[in-house]
Amino acid sequence: MERQLVGRELAPLLIELVDLALIAKQAHWNVSGLWFRQLHTQLDELADDVRLWSDDVAERLTTIGDAADARVETVAAETPFTGFPRGFLDSTKVAPLIVERLSKVIENNQGRIERLGAADLVSQDLVIGVTGGLQKHEWMFAAEQPTHHP
Amino acid sequence: MERQLVGRELAPLLIELVDLALIAKQAHWNVSGLWFRQLHTQLDELADDVRLWSDDVAERLTTIGDAADARVETVAAETPFTGFPRGFLDSTKVAPLIVERLSKVIENNQGRIERLGAADLVSQDLVIGVTGGLQKHEWMFAAEQPTHHP
Amino acid sequence: MERQLVGRELAPLLIELVDLALIAKQAHWNVSGLWFRQLHTQLDELADDVRLWSDDVAERLTTIGDAADARVETVAAETPFTGFPRGFLDSTKVAPLIVERLSKVIENNQGRIERLGAADLVSQDLVIGVTGGLQKHEWMFAAEQPTHHP
Amino acid sequence: MERQLVGRELAPLLIELVDLALIAKQAHWNVSGLWFRQLHTQLDELADDVRLWSDDVAERLTTIGDAADARVETVAAETPFTGFPRGFLDSTKVAPLIVERLSKVIENNQGRIERLGAADLVSQDLVIGVTGGLQKHEWMFAAEQPTHHP
Amino acid sequence: MERQLVGRELAPLLIELVDLALIAKQAHWNVSGLWFRQLHTQLDELADDVRLWSDDVAERLTTIGDAADARVETVAAETPFTGFPRGFLDSTKVAPLIVERLSKVIENNQGRIERLGAADLVSQDLVIGVTGGLQKHEWMFAAEQPTHHP
Amino acid sequence: MERQLVGRELAPLLIELVDLALIAKQAHWNVSGLWFRQLHTQLDELADDVRLWSDDVAERLTTIGDAADARVETVAAETPFTGFPRGFLDSTKVAPLIVERLSKVIENNQGRIERLGAADLVSQDLVIGVTGGLQKHEWMFAAEQPTHHP
Amino acid sequence: MERQLVGRELAPLLIELVDLALIAKQAHWNVSGLWFRQLHTQLDELADDVRLWSDDVAERLTTIGDAADARVETVAAETPFTGFPRGFLDSTKVAPLIVERLSKVIENNQGRIERLGAADLVSQDLVIGVTGGLQKHEWMFAAEQPTHHP
Amino acid sequence: MERQLVGRELAPLLIELVDLALIAKQAHWNVSGLWFRQLHTQLDELADDVRLWSDDVAERLTTIGDAADARVETVAAETPFTGFPRGFLDSTKVAPLIVERLSKVIENNQGRIERLGAADLVSQDLVIGVTGGLQKHEWMFAAEQPTHHP
Amino acid sequence: MERQLVGRELAPLLIELVDLALIAKQAHWNVSGLWFRQLHTQLDELADDVRLWSDDVAERLTTIGDAADARVETVAAETPFTGFPRGFLDSTKVAPLIVERLSKVIENNQGRIERLGAADLVSQDLVIGVTGGLQKHEWMFAAEQPTHHP
Amino acid sequence: MERQLVGRELAPLLIELVDLALIAKQAHWNVSGLWFRQLHTQLDELADDVRLWSDDVAERLTTIGDAADARVETVAAETPFTGFPRGFLDSTKVAPLIVERLSKVIENNQGRIERLGAADLVSQDLVIGVTGGLQKHEWMFAAEQPTHHP
Amino acid sequence: MERQLVGRELAPLLIELVDLALIAKQAHWNVSGLWFRQLHTQLDELADDVRLWSDDVAERLTTIGDAADARVETVAAETPFTGFPRGFLDSTKVAPLIVERLSKVIENNQGRIERLGAADLVSQDLVIGVTGGLQKHEWMFAAEQPTHHP
Amino acid sequence: MERQLVGRELAPLLIELVDLALIAKQAHWNVSGLWFRQLHTQLDELADDVRLWSDDVAERLTTIGDAADARVETVAAETPFTGFPRGFLDSTKVAPLIVERLSKVIENNQGRIERLGAADLVSQDLVIGVTGGLQKHEWMFAAEQPTHHP
Repeated sequence: MERQLVGRELAPLLIELVDLALIAKQAHWNVSGLWFRQLHTQLDELADDVRLWSDDVAERLTTIGDAADARVETVAAETPFTGFPRGFLDSTKVAPLIVERLSKVIENNQGRIERLGAADLVSQDLVIGVTGGLQKHEWMFAAEQPTHHP
Repeated sequence: MERQLVGRELAPLLIELVDLALIAKQAHWNVSGLWFRQLHTQLDELADDVRLWSDDVAERLTTIGDAADARVETVAAETPFTGFPRGFLDSTKVAPLIVERLSKVIENNQGRIERLGAADLVSQDLVIGVTGGLQKHEWMFAAEQPTHHP
Repeated sequence: MERQLVGRELAPLLIELVDLALIAKQAHWNVSGLWFRQLHTQLDELADDVRLWSDDVAERLTTIGDAADARVETVAAETPFTGFPRGFLDSTKVAPLIVERLSKVIENNQGRIERLGAADLVSQDLVIGVTGGLQKHEWMFAAEQPTHHP
Repeated sequence: MERQLVGRELAPLLIELVDLALIAKQAHWNVSGLWFRQLHTQLDELADDVRLWSDDVAERLTTIGDAADARVETVAAETPFTGFPRGFLDSTKVAPLIVERLSKVIENNQGRIERLGAADLVSQDLVIGVTGGLQKHEWMFAAEQPTHHP
Repeated sequence: MERQLVGRELAPLLIELVDLALIAKQAHWNVSGLWFRQLHTQLDELADDVRLWSDDVAERLTTIGDAADARVETVAAETPFTGFPRGFLDSTKVAPLIVERLSKVIENNQGRIERLGAADLVSQDLVIGVTGGLQKHEWMFAAEQPTHHP
Repeated sequence: MERQLVGRELAPLLIELVDLALIAKQAHWNVSGLWFRQLHTQLDELADDVRLWSDDVAERLTTIGDAADARVETVAAETPFTGFPRGFLDSTKVAPLIVERLSKVIENNQGRIERLGAADLVSQDLVIGVTGGLQKHEWMFAAEQPTHHP
Repeated sequence: MERQLVGRELAPLLIELVDLALIAKQAHWNVSGLWFRQLHTQLDELADDVRLWSDDVAERLTTIGDAADARVETVAAETPFTGFPRGFLDSTKVAPLIVERLSKVIENNQGRIERLGAADLVSQDLVIGVTGGLQKHEWMFAAEQPTHHP
Repeated sequence: MERQLVGRELAPLLIELVDLALIAKQAHWNVSGLWFRQLHTQLDELADDVRLWSDDVAERLTTIGDAADARVETVAAETPFTGFPRGFLDSTKVAPLIVERLSKVIENNQGRIERLGAADLVSQDLVIGVTGGLQKHEWMFAAEQPTHHP
Repeated sequence: MERQLVGRELAPLLIELVDLALIAKQAHWNVSGLWFRQLHTQLDELADDVRLWSDDVAERLTTIGDAADARVETVAAETPFTGFPRGFLDSTKVAPLIVERLSKVIENNQGRIERLGAADLVSQDLVIGVTGGLQKHEWMFAAEQPTHHP
Repeated sequence: MERQLVGRELAPLLIELVDLALIAKQAHWNVSGLWFRQLHTQLDELADDVRLWSDDVAERLTTIGDAADARVETVAAETPFTGFPRGFLDSTKVAPLIVERLSKVIENNQGRIERLGAADLVSQDLVIGVTGGLQKHEWMFAAEQPTHHP
Repeated sequence: MERQLVGRELAPLLIELVDLALIAKQAHWNVSGLWFRQLHTQLDELADDVRLWSDDVAERLTTIGDAADARVETVAAETPFTGFPRGFLDSTKVAPLIVERLSKVIENNQGRIERLGAADLVSQDLVIGVTGGLQKHEWMFAAEQPTHHP
Repeated sequence: MERQLVGRELAPLLIELVDLALIAKQAHWNVSGLWFRQLHTQLDELADDVRLWSDDVAERLTTIGDAADARVETVAAETPFTGFPRGFLDSTKVAPLIVERLSKVIENNQGRIERLGAADLVSQDLVIGVTGGLQKHEWMFAAEQPTHHP
């Protein structure tokens, strides 16, 4: 296991997951409109899953010998997810905002999985599991959009 | 109920609680040393409680008609808790760092409770409950320090 | 504790809660249309909460020494919630009907909380808790309306 | 299945069950005297069962295509159970009051079961089940009276 | 109990239920559009119930001495439910497809219940129970259509 | 929060609750006679609740910085509940003995709640909750007496 | 372990326990009168415990190599508990009938415990445990009699 | 409901079920041989079900106003199941003995169901349910015999 | 991730799993003979596991953007598992029939795992997990055959 | 069973256990210092166990016909555990204080077990069980001391 | 309590139990043949029970002040159970191998129980309990052999 | 899947895990000193995890067709973990002893994972999962040492 290489993959994933959980909660609280109830619940399930995965990734970091860093200043500085709207969110606008952010982590994970395959199969297995879970959430938010599968 | 007044009290409390949960997790992952195990567990219980309270406060905000804002950029900009150390944390140094931050929210809540008493007793009751819970955690972290009750 | 004063506040609240539970069940059974499923579930959760609160209020009445009265003839005679439509209810029409009735109890409770503050803090605490719960339901039904937060 | 005939049997049963639940709760709160505790519990179990059955009957009504009507004004106007005493109830007086009302529904159900046998066996099966349950409660309240089985 | 007669009623019901469960799963996976989430869940509950009922019917067949036959070739050859669309299904088109198939089994069961009344009351009781459950699902899918109860 | 004032209110409440739990157990074990079974159970529920409240009060004391003192010599010296009879207790004599002691704590708590309102709202909220619970137990023991509500 | 000696002690105990469970059920069903509810429950708990103990005793018999015999003809022929009244039982007459039978087994067990001490300590330990349990039930039925502890 | 007629059907069914439970336990303890384990478990499940059904039948008897009688002397005198072998039972001989006794009750129940159809549909429904359950057990014991379905 | 390639691997696996679950249920219902009970249970556990896996595979298909197709006509047309015997199955003949079908899916999965390794590691991980589970069931059915491990 | 002799052994054990539970709670609340958390938890587990045992001993006393006496004045007058320090307790000083008191009860129980062997084996068995439990707690507190097993 | 004497009895029992658990697992994994499934399960239940008992015995050793020693080299050197066959085990050969080993511990425990009666009744009680449990397992494995009870 | 190759990797891993579980228990029982409590618990969690993993590895061996061998003589002869100290263990000396042994298995697993990648991906996936779990335990024991992360 090449520790430096592994840490370089997991540290930014931790940042992305911690911000994703904050975003899911932000949307969970502020969604409103005709589909309020299903999104209110669905976003909470997303937040729960993402928090568990951030825990797994952070503890894998400490396990390989790197300290985890998900302090708010670090997350704010390094997250790729800027510009989530403030204030109440109409329920028809939530899914695209979430899908866009989920797709970003999934895309980033493709490279991480590949690079970890050469460095640490335990960490690779963890990122594969997280990616499968994120893709399932992505499908379900995408499926709720009117233009899906025309 | 004077909505503006209530929102002015709850919005910063939400920021503080969201950051407190991030800090508790940060310490939960990085603590090390002879008291690792008890702090690793205790910090997770703190994070769990604080997350539940942040949910209650955020949903009280939307209930009174204000949107909640706990996006990472907002929390980073407005949190009073700067300077939490990065990297591994020796287990004897955790308690003072946590107690200091808990005390800050508790102190802020004293004024909030007072002001909410004149504006909205439901919100006041919520902040009283959160404060009691924070004080109990504060006692337990404080009790673990060698210089406590000489 | 001034028993007479307390009974004067809690007795009508009991009437309102018992009727609210009947109304929630009435809507739970008869709702139909595109949002059937989410409202069918949500109204049942409302009925469950309101029944628990009516139990608390009724037993507080007997605890302070007054008999509770929620017989159907009393509720029918004294409830402020007249005119709930009979027959099937289109799912887009449910939320306003429920919000209107929740708002009425919440408004009545403002005065009750104030007056109980001078008479019996235990009863006041109970009514504060009930009011917070009703407001949370009010928010969620209100949030489901298309014209919410334009 | 002859829908009109079925609705004509289930609609009044719904009224009777909803009122029975209100009466069971009324007695549950106001009973007092030497047998307070066992009746307080037993009446709550009765209310729980009757509420479940009223749910089954109301949803059978909507299933066959009739709206259910258990609004307080309807129940108050059509219930056969008038004259339940207001105020505290001595524990020795509860059982006869409950048995009398249970017997009334059971008696009404005899005709309903017979008529439904010719119209809708699913609804008949439901009413048979409710009747068996009501008879078991009737036995247990009747068994608690001193003049039982001389 | 006339075994031959009973087997003649239960064997095709088993075929219908097994296919219904496959259809419910097919729709559960492929539904998409604005009502995705509620239908995704509702169809899974339908599949769960129908699977339990198919188990009861199959084991009643073996209990009366007939082997059950729900192999895929038998179900494909004898099911009355042809033509369920392949591919993704828009969420507004699911309810009519499901209601149509539920109605078919319910209609078939009317004759079965009648004929079993003369042959085996235990089997009749089972089919009455299954029919009541199917009708409840039918009501809930029907209630979700925009043209319901004009 | 004025710590000295708060400690002065909570310390004697702790003494009263610890003794109340011992008394409830004493009666739980020694009750006998026709109402044995309901009192045996009811007294155990009282003991359970009172033990939980004594835990809350003691930990609030340490939370505000005062040590708790509920050693047997302290409780024996400072309890207001003297003279509980030794030996077997006839089941008709239990309720008055318990009601008398519950009323004493409730009465003492009236002043405590008032004084804590000026000193520490978190502690006041705790004492309000304990008082509501004690009053509910008081109602149920009082309701079991033959002379109740003539 | 002297197998013959052990079997000689356990076989009649099995008979007594199986009959005791039948008697407890007989009384559970037929009790009526003012204390119906508490005895109905208490007798069921007795039946549950006694059935578990009869299972333990029977399996200890097979464990030591003796077949168990608790067929109805054997129990009827060898039970010492004759003359339990048929028909409904007034609730004030139940306790003496049960206490009398419990005392009989307890008394028989004194000699069994003594004799098993010389033959098989595992079986002795089982009979000690059963006896302690029977004595606790005996105390609770005895405690419910008006003439207890004059 | 013709009470006398109903009691005449249920009383002997109660006898049969109580003896069946004793027989199932007798076999559960004494079975031995290569299929010991599956029969030991299966017989215990039979005993559990039959005990629940005997409870239902006995309480239906008291519900209709007849006392239940399942004292050991009554069961021994009136049971149709004589001659169950004493001592250890080879595991290949258990199924026929049990099937024979289950078939007897099932056969008796055919007439009971028919006669109760004219007297009391609630009791008929109970006996139909019991019969379905007994038939399922009968199938499973029958299925374990080598000569089954040649 | 090459979507077309992934769909080409998962679609036939879904067919195989759906048919395997139908076959497991078919055998579960119709098995008979001396080992009936253990196979009846074991086949149900197989059906439960296979159903969960078919759900995972179908939802992975929709997640990658392909509709799932497990309608009965598709499964009947494309399943490789033809010729499962109809009617009752002697318990000694079940294991070879099941092992043969499990081996077929396991063998097919070897190629799928290999090909997915180049296309989508998340899907590969899923198929590896399913294969491990199928192999464990294969071992347990194989182990029950008399000619195993001579 | 010689009742007088048994009561003479159990009555003082009840006193010791009741006081031990009060002491465990006293230490649970007031412990502070580096090992706070583990002792806070461990003392609560001790209190829970000791309370259960005091219940068993008290109910054995009433079972043999003696009233239990654990009123605070009796416990204060007869307990052998005087001098437990008031105020906060440093976490390194807790274990010796607890071990000392546990050893005292264990030592007393040696004689009690011996004497009960001649008087009542059921009570002896109870005291043996309590003693084993106390010894296990004693080991765990003793094991936490730095000078243990040098 | 004579510590040396007690340790001399418990230390070899610990060795025997730890090896017994390893043997039960060895057989659990390698059993094959027609009775595979029931033995696979039964051996796992044996292993679970024996592991719990080994924990109890080991902690009793440390409680009396002796260190426990169940390191693999100690167990291998001191276990009386040599010669358990390696490789797959035909299901008809398992029971005698297990019964033989269970009988050995049971026989050894007879002397231990006797000697502990003079040294430490708490340890004796533990060994009596373990022996009763081992004998029950012994009965069930013995009962599965074809030559049992001819 | 090359069976011989797979067996060559899993067989020694089974030995290591079985010995690791024995060592974890050995330390769990004998640890003493200031950190007794946290290590006593942590070692038990390690033993539980390792036992589950040894079960998975052993059953994978039988699944691929090799018998498992974890008899005490085999484990003693082939384990790489010699020299674990006998007797009581000071709590500060436990972590290094455990970390050393965990590191050894983790190191061995690196090669196993690599070699299994070419032979059997199902077995590789199992060893990856076990390794990740062992590494997490290794981190937590390592984190408790004073010299960690200076």
